[in-house]
Amino acid sequence: MTRQELITTIKQKQSYLCVGLDTDIEKMPAHLNGDVLAFNSAIIESTKDYCVSYKINTAFYEAQGAQGWHNLKETFQLIPKTHLSIADAKRGDIGNTSDQYAKAFFNEMQADALTVAPYMGKDSLASFLAYKDKWTIVLGLTSNQGAHDFELLELASGKKLYQEVIEKVGTWGTEENLMFVTGATQASHLGDLRNIIPNHFLLIPGVGKQGGNLKDISKVSMTEDVAILVNSSRAIIYASTGENFAEAAGEEAKKVAEEMKVILEEINIK
Amino acid sequence: MTRQELITTIKQKQSYLCVGLDTDIEKMPAHLNGDVLAFNSAIIESTKDYCVSYKINTAFYEAQGAQGWHNLKETFQLIPKTHLSIADAKRGDIGNTSDQYAKAFFNEMQADALTVAPYMGKDSLASFLAYKDKWTIVLGLTSNQGAHDFELLELASGKKLYQEVIEKVGTWGTEENLMFVTGATQASHLGDLRNIIPNHFLLIPGVGKQGGNLKDISKVSMTEDVAILVNSSRAIIYASTGENFAEAAGEEAKKVAEEMKVILEEINIK
Repeated sequence: MTRQELITTIKQKQSYLCVGLDTDIEKMPAHLNGDVLAFNSAIIESTKDYCVSYKINTAFYEAQGAQGWHNLKETFQLIPKTHLSIADAKRGDIGNTSDQYAKAFFNEMQADALTVAPYMGKDSLASFLAYKDKWTIVLGLTSNQGAHDFELLELASGKKLYQEVIEKVGTWGTEENLMFVTGATQASHLGDLRNIIPNHFLLIPGVGKQGGNLKDISKVSMTEDVAILVNSSRAIIYASTGENFAEAAGEEAKKVAEEMKVILEEINIK
Repeated sequence: MTRQELITTIKQKQSYLCVGLDTDIEKMPAHLNGDVLAFNSAIIESTKDYCVSYKINTAFYEAQGAQGWHNLKETFQLIPKTHLSIADAKRGDIGNTSDQYAKAFFNEMQADALTVAPYMGKDSLASFLAYKDKWTIVLGLTSNQGAHDFELLELASGKKLYQEVIEKVGTWGTEENLMFVTGATQASHLGDLRNIIPNHFLLIPGVGKQGGNLKDISKVSMTEDVAILVNSSRAIIYASTGENFAEAAGEEAKKVAEEMKVILEEINIK
């Protein structure tokens, strides 16, 4: 999915919601007897009108062994082509290894996008960025408490580490194939960040269970192209653990989408 | 495997070699018809006398889809209990997600050790370090050119980022369940690093194809407990692509082990 296609979809739907499929067998409704694909399929069906993207957290699938890996691939098949599919896998290694990760997610899984970690530098990301028609989403400033340990450290240059990461990585890809993860709990930093990368899409987790406020983070990070995707996982997919789980997830996604519509109207983005 | 068991094995074998099973279907001998488990099994059989550990690079398995993930698990079963089995997966995410990765590798795969990336800080590593009888191996200073992009940046404190990572992370685990990845191409930094973590085990990749010199890096990083594992992947497992591939791999591993024996004798470690 191209940048322009994504922007068009967002503006048409008046939603920049990404639903996170962090499907945990232990949290699924009991009546599904651990059938991950039945769960994901129902969640996608009930939420697809309110979101523009799905983010699949690979860890939850890996924890289920080969069956989980099979479910991971099948889940990518379940996502409508109209929605951006993101493998949230946070990979990254030396070049010959990153080549294999790129193959695993972009070719084998047919994901539109993959999250990657920046620590190992340029050659660890090059394999992903070589795919011009796929999205590489690099960790910038994450939503967790641990962001203070390294990401927010001050460098000798006066910049924070995450600023250096975003500035440097920003020159390695384009606005057409590179996004950044920036946590919703970091609203005070998101404005500064737009000075460094005025146009790149941001994938923003941390709204909902992690405590980020949708309106605040949208206002400081949105551009006239919108250029943000806000992810919500647990608050939507586990809205109910009863037989009405899909309906409840749809209601929750709808609620977030309606909030987004109001925000877009307030900022006058059409 | 405990620290003491690992040290004892190293001293008995006079080898601190870790063989990397970066098994690439495209580089395997043609007569195996892509049978990854036959390849790994033969390589393990021919090299096990000369090494103390196997490192499985998960990317090469993930690139093969659900069958690859199955092969990954089966390969962990092939590794003798006398050898430390490492999942080289470079995972790391927020707490509830890292919990799932820990489950995937420590429980489901039954790996003894897992490599993880430090960028997201303490709470992203806590899930792994909570396993006291497993090893968490954190990226410190990697062997690739990209290490210069972020890992070697100077902080406002005057330290390099990788030094801060090693110093801080060093306080989150113990010498019994925490190691660091430090690349063999970084010999000039390995000595300094021992001032920060005098006793922790180091996993050192980058000897062989990546150009690191075994003797140099061993001398600057070894302690009286040895406390290093030097990994070699491609130079050993692809020593020959003919029908004699296993024999050739064994010969290559033996050659490295003999070099290690000489180094240990020179430093008078018994």
